[in-house]
Amino acid sequence: MDFSSKLLENAVNEVSRLPGIGKRTALRLVLHLLKQPTENTKYLSEALLHLRNDVKTCEKCHNISDTVLCDICQNPKRNAEIVCVVEDIRDVMAIESTSQFKGLYHVLGGKISPIEGIGPQNLQIDSLIHKVEKGEIKELIFALSSTMEGDTTNFYIFKQIEKFDITTSTIARGISVGDELEYADEVTLGRSIVNRIPFEQSIRG
Amino acid sequence: MDFSSKLLENAVNEVSRLPGIGKRTALRLVLHLLKQPTENTKYLSEALLHLRNDVKTCEKCHNISDTVLCDICQNPKRNAEIVCVVEDIRDVMAIESTSQFKGLYHVLGGKISPIEGIGPQNLQIDSLIHKVEKGEIKELIFALSSTMEGDTTNFYIFKQIEKFDITTSTIARGISVGDELEYADEVTLGRSIVNRIPFEQSIRG
Repeated sequence: MDFSSKLLENAVNEVSRLPGIGKRTALRLVLHLLKQPTENTKYLSEALLHLRNDVKTCEKCHNISDTVLCDICQNPKRNAEIVCVVEDIRDVMAIESTSQFKGLYHVLGGKISPIEGIGPQNLQIDSLIHKVEKGEIKELIFALSSTMEGDTTNFYIFKQIEKFDITTSTIARGISVGDELEYADEVTLGRSIVNRIPFEQSIRG
Repeated sequence: MDFSSKLLENAVNEVSRLPGIGKRTALRLVLHLLKQPTENTKYLSEALLHLRNDVKTCEKCHNISDTVLCDICQNPKRNAEIVCVVEDIRDVMAIESTSQFKGLYHVLGGKISPIEGIGPQNLQIDSLIHKVEKGEIKELIFALSSTMEGDTTNFYIFKQIEKFDITTSTIARGISVGDELEYADEVTLGRSIVNRIPFEQSIRG
C-alpha cells in the first residue's frame, strides 16, 4: 500500500495487528474514524487504555472484573458449592445469558494445547485443585469446548480430583434444539443416542 | 450480553461502533488486547489519537497528508496539467499502486448522493472548478466509481467545466484482465464492445 501519510500508515499498521483484520479493513476503519468527530476516536482510545490498564481478574474465579471479587462470586444468592469450569470469559457470558446456572464459575484462561505451547502451568488449574482440596466444592461441571484440547484438559483436571469426594459432570452434547437430524454430524448424533435421557425429563424443559 | 466488567463493556461498545464490527467481533478484539502486552494497546490508542489530531488534508488535492502539501503535489516530476478526479484517498492509493499515472489528483471526498444527504457543497468541487478556471489543468480524468452517484457527480462537474478549453476523459470500463467473458455482466460487456479499441493499441500495454 502506498500511504500518503506516515500517521495514516502507522494507524493502519496498528489496527491490522488485531486478529482477523487485514490492511484493507484497517484502512476502512481508520478512514471512518477520520470522517467522525474527533471525540469518537478519543472515546475509543480511552476505553481501550482504561480497560487494559485498570481491569482486574477476579481473585476467586479468574473472570474479568472491575473489582477484586467479581459480581458473580460476590452474589450471596448463588450456590458456591457448584462450580462450572470454562475456558474463558466468553463462555461465562454465554452461560449467564441462558439464566440456567446459579452456581459459580472457574475460568481456566484457555485449554491445554501442546501445539500452542500451553501447558497446565499456564492455566488456572492449581487454584481449582486447591478449591477442591479445601472442600469448598461439591459439584464440578466441565463446560469446555468439545475438542481434543478440551477433552485433554477435562481429563487432566479429573485425574487430580477423582480422589476427593466430589461430583463431576460435563454439559450435555447432542443435537442442537431446532436442528434437523439429517444435517447433524455422526459423532454428535452418535453421542446423543448413547447419552439419551428419559422422555419425561426431556419434556420438563 | 452480560458483562462482568463495566470497563470491558465500555471498550466493546466503542469498538462495535466501527463499521462492520458487531458486538461479538468487538469482544474478540478487546479480549485479544487483554492477552497481549499493555504496550500493544498503548501503541494502538496513540496511533489512532495522533492520526485523528495531527493529520492534515493537502491544500491542493485534498488527499490525506502529514504536510500542508502532499508528497504527490510536491513532486516536481509529476505532470500538474493532468488531474485525476477521485472520490477518496483509497482511490489515490489504488491508482498509485499501478504506477501508470504521473499526473496529480483531486480528491472530492465522496460523491453526490441525495439519499445520504451529500450535495455538491459537501464535496471539494468548487476548488476543482477554480483550478480549471485558472487554466492550471489541461486534462481532467474522471475516475469515480461506476454507479449512479458517480455518474451524477461526473456530469455535474462536466457541465460546469465544458465551457473551458480542457480535455476530459473517464477511465476505461470493460472486462477485467484475466476474466472470462461468460461471467461478465451484460452492461460491462456491452460497454466494452461499444468502446472497443484498436487491436494494435491493446497489445502495447
